[in-house]
Amino acid sequence: MKINVGIVGYGNLGRAIEKEILKNKNFNLVAIFSRRVVSSNFNSLVEPYENHILYKHKIDIMFLCGGSLSDIESQAPEITKHFNTINSFDTHSKIKQLQETLNKIATKTNHISIISCGWDPGIFSNIRALMYAVSGETPITFWGKGISMGHSDAIRRVNGVDDGVQFTVPNKQAIALAKKGILSNDVPLHFRECFIVSHDTNKSAIEKNIKNIPNYFKNQPTTVAFVNVEQLLKLKKKLYHKGEIICSFGTEFKSRFEFKVQMQSNPNFTAKIMLCYAKAVINLKKRKINGGFTPLDIPFNFLFLDNEKNTLNRLC
Amino acid sequence: MKINVGIVGYGNLGRAIEKEILKNKNFNLVAIFSRRVVSSNFNSLVEPYENHILYKHKIDIMFLCGGSLSDIESQAPEITKHFNTINSFDTHSKIKQLQETLNKIATKTNHISIISCGWDPGIFSNIRALMYAVSGETPITFWGKGISMGHSDAIRRVNGVDDGVQFTVPNKQAIALAKKGILSNDVPLHFRECFIVSHDTNKSAIEKNIKNIPNYFKNQPTTVAFVNVEQLLKLKKKLYHKGEIICSFGTEFKSRFEFKVQMQSNPNFTAKIMLCYAKAVINLKKRKINGGFTPLDIPFNFLFLDNEKNTLNRLC
Repeated sequence: MKINVGIVGYGNLGRAIEKEILKNKNFNLVAIFSRRVVSSNFNSLVEPYENHILYKHKIDIMFLCGGSLSDIESQAPEITKHFNTINSFDTHSKIKQLQETLNKIATKTNHISIISCGWDPGIFSNIRALMYAVSGETPITFWGKGISMGHSDAIRRVNGVDDGVQFTVPNKQAIALAKKGILSNDVPLHFRECFIVSHDTNKSAIEKNIKNIPNYFKNQPTTVAFVNVEQLLKLKKKLYHKGEIICSFGTEFKSRFEFKVQMQSNPNFTAKIMLCYAKAVINLKKRKINGGFTPLDIPFNFLFLDNEKNTLNRLC
Repeated sequence: MKINVGIVGYGNLGRAIEKEILKNKNFNLVAIFSRRVVSSNFNSLVEPYENHILYKHKIDIMFLCGGSLSDIESQAPEITKHFNTINSFDTHSKIKQLQETLNKIATKTNHISIISCGWDPGIFSNIRALMYAVSGETPITFWGKGISMGHSDAIRRVNGVDDGVQFTVPNKQAIALAKKGILSNDVPLHFRECFIVSHDTNKSAIEKNIKNIPNYFKNQPTTVAFVNVEQLLKLKKKLYHKGEIICSFGTEFKSRFEFKVQMQSNPNFTAKIMLCYAKAVINLKKRKINGGFTPLDIPFNFLFLDNEKNTLNRLC
């Protein structure tokens, strides 16, 4: 029997999930819910956002693909009252809080909500946990080259910036030092490449303001380039990304862990991960376990349906 | 309160675990149990094997470090009747069967047994499961350079071989092809380097017999070198090892996972992993969950004690 699923939010991620669901024999896409008037390239049913409530007993799992951070924070509690939900919420500092909120709602309404099911947070959280558990040392994460949504949001909030995008580029020298276990705090982990559209004439003030944003750019090697609307649009379409976690440890005996992902499409990769955790919802349900979870709470054998268990046993 | 633990079997792995336990503030080493008359370099209490039964209520978790495969298969069921147990059993084809046996015993006697807690099987099982879950593709594993116990055992069973050791060496060309996602079946993944001590004069027959062992050496590039007892002893002391898993996938959008470990001491690395799963025993116990498990059944947040949860949240 197929798992009936829905998609809330129809941007890059929602469209990527739609494509993955349509290719996967375990899932049946019932409807997509969007605040905007949009249509599907694959003739999927698209409903206005508020109609999701009409599907209460027709959809097992909702994939929350809201376009912005605030979408997930407001929609996830609402939708988890009526459905099992999966999201890829990526504000590290707010994960614990969102999990607690959703855990209360899901427990009360007999649902399951798994949050932050992307590659970072998500898979990378699990890998960092594993490395730290074994080594007792803090693993180092490098991202890119690829667009960082958080940093792009930050530059767009600067006065005089009409629009912009930020590419995170890892410092190869830092990666080499991390592998050797001799990376010191003064070596920057990343370079920050900002591309800005601005009608403001005081470009040097904008550049200075960006470079001084604390936590995001201050004390990090940052370049700011001014481009036209067309050039920016082209840059924003770059969906590739990469990430790498390194953990060198041990004194008497030296050891090292390395984990790397690279992808031509960030939304496509994230969609594949969210589908795995939809299978975890089915496995939790089967064991009558409700509540709010992150990938750290889910054993990897929960990422498989019964019809996939033979291959899993052969592999592991 | 410290976790009281014991060690059964006092070879390379047992000694590595002893050292890790003595460095770790969460554990208290109560006793080591050995069939041989041995003494600890660290003044740990060493008891004859059969005395383990006298420690029934004094030890929470037993680390099973039997020197050979048959040790674990016979000792684990016996000891799991009286204690929670952890082992790093590494015969892939028998894991499911051993888990079922121990699951029955552990469930009946209210114990927890976690099996195959090494790096492969163990961590690598989890990583392969994750890669397969996301990609739907079979990941490829490369081992070495390092000693393979299974292959070394296989050559020692050949007529005329007094003793021997086998180093597994990954084929760099195969690794490069796997990363590109274009590795074909005819490319060997590994080279097999055998070092043999033999008093037999018919060396070419021995070499031929080794190269024809099915599953282990047949159709794999294998070299056989004859060495003296002293040279072999030196080779057997090489404890370093390495492993790498690669999974390239996707057609419209290409993606890749890579996971790599390297270590100067295989027993030390394995010991660190077994200690993590001892913490999982504590977490399972707290939730009153008994039975036989593999690392695939254990979520990564179970690898931490409460006093480590803050660091975990910061990292993930």
